[in-house]
Amino acid sequence: MVARSLLLGLALVAGTAIAGDLAAGRAKADAVCAVCHGPNGLSMQPNAPHLAGQPEIYLVEQLKNYRSGKRSHDVMSVIAKPLTDAEIQNLAAWYAAMQVSVQLP
Amino acid sequence: MVARSLLLGLALVAGTAIAGDLAAGRAKADAVCAVCHGPNGLSMQPNAPHLAGQPEIYLVEQLKNYRSGKRSHDVMSVIAKPLTDAEIQNLAAWYAAMQVSVQLP
Repeated sequence: MVARSLLLGLALVAGTAIAGDLAAGRAKADAVCAVCHGPNGLSMQPNAPHLAGQPEIYLVEQLKNYRSGKRSHDVMSVIAKPLTDAEIQNLAAWYAAMQVSVQLP
Repeated sequence: MVARSLLLGLALVAGTAIAGDLAAGRAKADAVCAVCHGPNGLSMQPNAPHLAGQPEIYLVEQLKNYRSGKRSHDVMSVIAKPLTDAEIQNLAAWYAAMQVSVQLP
């Protein structure tokens, strides 16, 4: 019981730490990301990934990697450079909030 | 008409160039990738991306980037290292063949 409460507490802390503002994330996504990644997070370019429903932690990590130069791409390295931590968290929250369903071939 | 035929021809050539073997891709994906990326391409880990329906060209590029070291990740750099071009193309074909639909929040 104590262990479960502790785990829940940690999960809440972790969740809070990356909680983003959905509306702000959507506005930024529509203005900057949608041209390649689509207004619904489905890629419009053969070499751009779908972002819809991606795990929030993954999206934060990748945007920070592009910002720092750990990951590089002609377009994304330029796009990510000026993003603040808050903007990254908002974008990640927006894309992570999309519900994705999959049909196997 | 000529231009359209030419474009179609180029598209076919481009398609052929990265065409992979779905069944072989699925077998490899089930054996190696599914533990983190899910049996249906939906991530089972907070820092692993969904692969379902991702553009084939993007998946090929990222796996090759992990293999060459251009992109790095503790797990993926190890997983991608021994992959052949054919295995990469098969994996990309399998994940790209999944149909994804999205519901906005």
